[in-house]
Order: sequence, then structure tokens, then C-alpha cells
Amino acid sequence: MTLLDCQVVGNKILIQNNRLFLAFVVIFIDMEKHLIVQKYGGSSVANIDRIKNVASRIAKYKKQGHKIVVIVSALGDTTDELLELAGQITDKPSDRELDMLISTGEQVSVALLAMALHKIGIGAISFTGPQVGIITDRTHTKAKILKISADRIKEQVEKGKVVIVAGFQGMNADQEITTLGRGGSDLTAVAIATTLNADMCEIYTDVEGVYTADPRIVKDARKLSVISYEEMLELASLGAQVMQARSMEVAKKYSVPLHIRSSFSYKEGTIISKEVKAMEDVLVSGVTANKGEAKVTICDVPDRPGIAAKIFTDIAEHDINVDMIIQNISRRGYTDLSFTVPISELNKTKDVMARIVKSVKAKGVVYNNEIAKVSIVGVGMKTHSGVAAKMFGALASKKINIDMISTSEIKISCVINKKYADESVKVLHKVFGLSKER
Amino acid sequence: MTLLDCQVVGNKILIQNNRLFLAFVVIFIDMEKHLIVQKYGGSSVANIDRIKNVASRIAKYKKQGHKIVVIVSALGDTTDELLELAGQITDKPSDRELDMLISTGEQVSVALLAMALHKIGIGAISFTGPQVGIITDRTHTKAKILKISADRIKEQVEKGKVVIVAGFQGMNADQEITTLGRGGSDLTAVAIATTLNADMCEIYTDVEGVYTADPRIVKDARKLSVISYEEMLELASLGAQVMQARSMEVAKKYSVPLHIRSSFSYKEGTIISKEVKAMEDVLVSGVTANKGEAKVTICDVPDRPGIAAKIFTDIAEHDINVDMIIQNISRRGYTDLSFTVPISELNKTKDVMARIVKSVKAKGVVYNNEIAKVSIVGVGMKTHSGVAAKMFGALASKKINIDMISTSEIKISCVINKKYADESVKVLHKVFGLSKER
Repeated sequence: MTLLDCQVVGNKILIQNNRLFLAFVVIFIDMEKHLIVQKYGGSSVANIDRIKNVASRIAKYKKQGHKIVVIVSALGDTTDELLELAGQITDKPSDRELDMLISTGEQVSVALLAMALHKIGIGAISFTGPQVGIITDRTHTKAKILKISADRIKEQVEKGKVVIVAGFQGMNADQEITTLGRGGSDLTAVAIATTLNADMCEIYTDVEGVYTADPRIVKDARKLSVISYEEMLELASLGAQVMQARSMEVAKKYSVPLHIRSSFSYKEGTIISKEVKAMEDVLVSGVTANKGEAKVTICDVPDRPGIAAKIFTDIAEHDINVDMIIQNISRRGYTDLSFTVPISELNKTKDVMARIVKSVKAKGVVYNNEIAKVSIVGVGMKTHSGVAAKMFGALASKKINIDMISTSEIKISCVINKKYADESVKVLHKVFGLSKER
Repeated sequence: MTLLDCQVVGNKILIQNNRLFLAFVVIFIDMEKHLIVQKYGGSSVANIDRIKNVASRIAKYKKQGHKIVVIVSALGDTTDELLELAGQITDKPSDRELDMLISTGEQVSVALLAMALHKIGIGAISFTGPQVGIITDRTHTKAKILKISADRIKEQVEKGKVVIVAGFQGMNADQEITTLGRGGSDLTAVAIATTLNADMCEIYTDVEGVYTADPRIVKDARKLSVISYEEMLELASLGAQVMQARSMEVAKKYSVPLHIRSSFSYKEGTIISKEVKAMEDVLVSGVTANKGEAKVTICDVPDRPGIAAKIFTDIAEHDINVDMIIQNISRRGYTDLSFTVPISELNKTKDVMARIVKSVKAKGVVYNNEIAKVSIVGVGMKTHSGVAAKMFGALASKKINIDMISTSEIKISCVINKKYADESVKVLHKVFGLSKER
């Protein structure tokens, strides 16, 4: 119900001259004026026309009487272009200087969006992350938000302004500019929505919501109207590109209501909520494939207590995100240890591994970036058996070899050869009947 | 004398075992370790190769033992490209959002230069203007520096780092990002040199120094080895593109020694110093032409006391830089009033003038942006007569009509038709014998 609808209702009752009813309606109007945090990703602001499109979308909500706080990513491929510039200078830029460099991308976006809003008569003000007090730890390029003192946002929202905040960036206690890592704008949006106790956090992207599988791979993939935080969390960490895992974790922790939707249409997207009862009967909600990881295998590690701890402590200290870890049984006092890392962190991993292999007296280390991790996700798995067997059988039917397996309560992941990624997503989508309406 | 030279001297004396001499030499070495502020303009960092060139130049000075603070402009045409983006959204962007937008240009430069220095093994750290406490007034796009708390620069210089500061930008008391206007990076450099009490402020550009005229127009224009602040100030305000007038004023006020030189060679440039005695005998030091101004004429202004004050107060309140002002004698109680403004401020001027013309009951207003201001500058003028006559005669010999005239103690400016600008510079350069060595 828009503000306009409410006023019509109000007028009708006013004609009836019933004061009690009128008071009720006024409260009702107030409740309809939501505080909405909207996050627009790089593809939504890829060029000037799209920025104007976003501005008119914001104007529409603003005119309905909502309070709007907008988080924006860098224009299109700006971040990659800036990294390319750095790459022309050095292959190992300092993390601090990288943050200094790439944080400019979002600053450009917020200024342009503010101008686009002014142009169509909407009061708006832009801020960098540091300006609105997004305080992070001291890690560069992958900082964690410690706190947000959103006073400046609140003050401007109360003045009736659309507040536009640069995503992805913050400031540490030394006033150094930090960035939150890829997908950090989602995190900015969720964190600000939490701080402001927003009614809704809308994540705008170039797809219309969360699908049972990537629609570019599976033709009859279906948009989910609702999904639980837990499932979305697994989907995010498994490479569904709509939202970053870290942001989902924060949203889940603080119960921030999320709405994943497209900036190119006004269709409803996918709501992510705390409890999705209707889902209980559904075995599997989605299938994903992540082609962005590499496998690292340390060969012939002496099988002694504390060795694994030593290895992964060392890796963690270098801020490398380890995903699946597999250790097979020991043969004659030695074992092989495999794990996956993002391909983007493979070079750093190699540096660290060279030292680790020596210090733990392993025989050697092997890398493979021709892998894909295919996963099925669903809260229904908890209470059903045979899901794993069905998955393995489906892959076997296509003669796809499984390299590593990892499971959680609501997901099963298999590492396979990268070239079979799309085929495996298709067969799993079919086997688990995901194209059918729930 | 480099640091290396000094150490050799020191060792020799050490062999002679003369303590007194040794102590003297140590002081001498310390004196040779200068604190140098270097400013590199947009053309010096126009692309990655040039950034690498600047880095190796800085490394050379650093290895000589000097303490180096570097101010950098945005890469090449970045600022114009950002303004172009804003222009695609609106023809009247808010000044605050413009500052938010264009301040990113310098931030990119400092990060890339720091990376380039790291790559060649030089410790360096980059800062934005706000990070090093460059506090400005509340004006946007043309802010004035109020103070610089350079503690952070000093701290890092003492740690042996090359400190790189983004030029052109600062922060006001509300923590809003401000910019200092075109040429603002020079101002940043001079202001930081003043605050740090630097031994030299080197302004790197794409020309080798200050010339008697623009060498692209006058083939036998000569590089000046020294020039006084006063002359440079007139030259700067008259459109010699090497340095901005505001920056010169600050340099003069605090006696900051300046060295205008090229980042593409190691040749000495032009030193700007307090007293240039040898210059006294020189009538004219340089000829300049400024094609970047437009003429505004208010026609038939009622000739009453206070009218001019009213007009120019109103213009000043809109932060428009008025240059020459000419008022002719009154005819029947009405007069014409002409002045020049930068072409870039002509649109804003038109808005203001529309209101002024009404309020002062003038007949109308006429604009002309097909003008050039040709000037001759020289401290020698003070004590010589006939310089103006010689100038007017030279222009007349080429049948160039003079539209407006304005004089100061050390300069004479004539407004002429823009198409005669180059020709007039050539004839004045010749008539005043500027190609001859002083």
C-alpha cells in the first residue's frame, strides 16, 4: 500500500467525521513509511543511463514517503580497471595502497548518484564509508566492520534526504582507508540496515532473485519467492553470485529482512527470511557450481598430532580463505591433506605452502585449479536420508568422477573436473525436480 | 654534493684523526640532507610509464639522503573525464558532490605512485588530503586552506618514508571533502612546504621552467634561470600555465623557495626567489597571453555612488573571479561597466548578471568570449617610463585593436581579439628584446 493509497483511505474516513477512526488511520500511514536500505551493485550503476535509472527508482520509493538509505558499488568494472592499473606497476601491491586505490571507485558512484537525484528534484547527500563512521579492524583489502556510528546518516534521513553511502569501504582506528573485500558493498548494506534497524534491506542486482540453479546453465531454473537464511548462506558460500556469504551471516545474526531483486524491473524478487515453514517438505532448494576455487594437496605429511593445526594456523595468519578440507587415512605414518582456496588467493597460498612443506617435512605440494565444486542445498535434507546417494548416482550416470566430498546439515558438495561443472548442475537440477513449482 | 660525497669527505678526515674537523663535517652532512617537497602535475603522471619515471626520480633524491614529501595531481585528464561524467547527468552539479567526485582522481595517483616506489624498493606511504589534516573553509570546489596539522607527514618522514600526499583536496570542519580549485595541487605543495619549513619546493611540470613567452608561440623564447615572486605572480595570474597565482601568493608570503622544472629531464629549471637583483636592469621579463577569459559589459548603468560596489559584492558572493574591471566616464548619468571572468565561470556569471541588471536598472548586458588578454611583466617597469607606449605601438604596428587596458606596477595588460593573441605575443617578445641573454 503506497502513501497515496493511505491518504485516500484517510479522506474517506474523515468524511465520515469519526475521530477515532481518523487517529487510527494516521498511525497506519506512519507505519507504511518504511526505512528501506537499498544496495545497488556494479551492474546496476554500470553507466550514466543506469545511474539515472537507479535515481528514478529511488525517487519513486522516496515519493511514497519511505526513508531511503542507498549503498552503491563502483561503476561496472571500475574496480577491475583500477586493479589492472596497479597490475601494470607491480604484481604484489601493498594492501594498504590497494585500499587507497580501489576505494575511489565507490566514491565516484555515490557522487554521481547524488547528482542524478538532485537533477530530478530529490534531496540527496553522498558519503564515503569513513565519513559515516564505518570503523573496521586493521586488515587491509578484507577488513571486518567493528562498528558503525550512523549518527550522520540518521541526521540526514531525518532532514528528509536520501542518504547515499559508498559501499565496500571503511576506516580503521588509525584513519587508514580499508576495504571489505569483494562483495563488501552487501556487507555495508546489511551492517547499516542492522544499525538503523531498517524495515527492509533490498539488494539490487542484475538477476531477478535467487534461482534453483544458474538460469544461464539450466533453462528451466525457477525463481524462489522465499528462502531461509541458512539455505541462502550455503548458496552464497557455494558461489551463487547474488550475495556474499559474510553479508548473509550478518543478516542472519541480526535478522535483517532481505529482498534480492533486479534494478531493471519492478518484479518482486526473493525474500530471505528467518523461518520458511513451507520449505520443510522440499528436499533440495538449489544447485550451484563454484569454478573459482583451486585444490591444494600436501603429499606425505607425517601423521602426528598438531600437524594439521600448525598448517592451517599458518594459512589463516595470511588471511587465506580455506574452504573444504579433506584428510585421508594414514598409510605408514604419512597422510595426504587436501583443501580448496579461492583461485585469487592461490599465489599467496603457494608462498605460504613453500615454507609449510619444509617445516612439517612433507614430501611436496600439488596444485589444481581445473576444479569445480558442485553443491546441492536444502533445509529438507536434515530429515531425509538418501539425498547424498541420489546426488552421487546422478553424477555417476553422466560418468563424472568425484574428487572430494564434503557435507553439512543442509548441503552436499562434490569437487569434480571443471569441464563437467555445467553438465553436473543440469543433471542434479533434473534429478531433484527443481523446475517444478513448490 | 650528494650524501655519498659527504661520507667520503668524512672518512678522509677520520683518517687524519682530527676530531674537530670530523664534528664539522657531520654537521655539514646533515645540512646537505634537505627536506624537499616535490609536486608532480597531471602531465608528469599521465600514464603508468610516467608514474614509474617519477618514482625513479624520487628514488634518486631519496638515495642521496634527502627527506622527500611528494604532492601528486590526478593522472593526465582524469579530472576532466570525471567532470564529463557529471556533465552527462546534469549541467549544474552540486559543488559538494563535485568535490566528492573529482577528489578521487588524486587518490588514485598517490596509491599508484606509492606502489611504484615500493616496487623499486623505496619505503613510501600515501595519504589523502583529509588524512594529513589539510583543513579548509566550507567553500566547495574552490576551498581555502585554513591550516595543516602535518604531524602525520612528519612522523612518516622521520621513519624514513617518502610521504605522498594527494594534491588539490582537503576537508572542512564538518569532515566534508573539499577541493582547492584548478591548480590546487600547487597550493597543497606550497602550503605543506611552508608547514614543514622545507628547504625547497620543486614544482614539476612538462616544461623546463619559466620562459620569456610561450615557446610554442615564440620560437626564440628563452628560459629564465631566476625570477622574482612578484613577476611570477603576475605571470601566473596572466595565464602562464606553470603555476597558479594563489600558490605563488602563499609562496611569496612565507618565502617558500620554489623551483619550477621538468619531470622529463634533470636540467635545472627556474628558481623563484625573494630578491633578484640582477633583474633590476631588465625592463620586461616575459610576455603572456590568456585566452581563457570572457568579457562582460553591463550597458547603461545609472552612475550613482555604490552601484559598482553592489554589483561586485553580488558577484563575489557567488565565488566568481573577476579580473580586469573597466569603467568609462559617464554620459548623461549612465555609464558602461566591463570586466573579465574565466570562461569556465561565464554560465554562473550570466545567472548572477540577469538579476543584477534588473536590480541596478541597467539597460542590458553583453558577453564576449572571443577575447585574449596579452600582458608584459617586469620589475624593471617600476622605474622606467615609456614601456606602455612601446607596447601599444607594437600592437598598433600589427593593426591589432586594443579593447581594454589595465596596468599595475610591474605589468601592463591589453584585451584584444582572441585571433590576434599569438601574433601580439610574438611582436611584443621581439620589441622588448626578450630572446637576448640577460
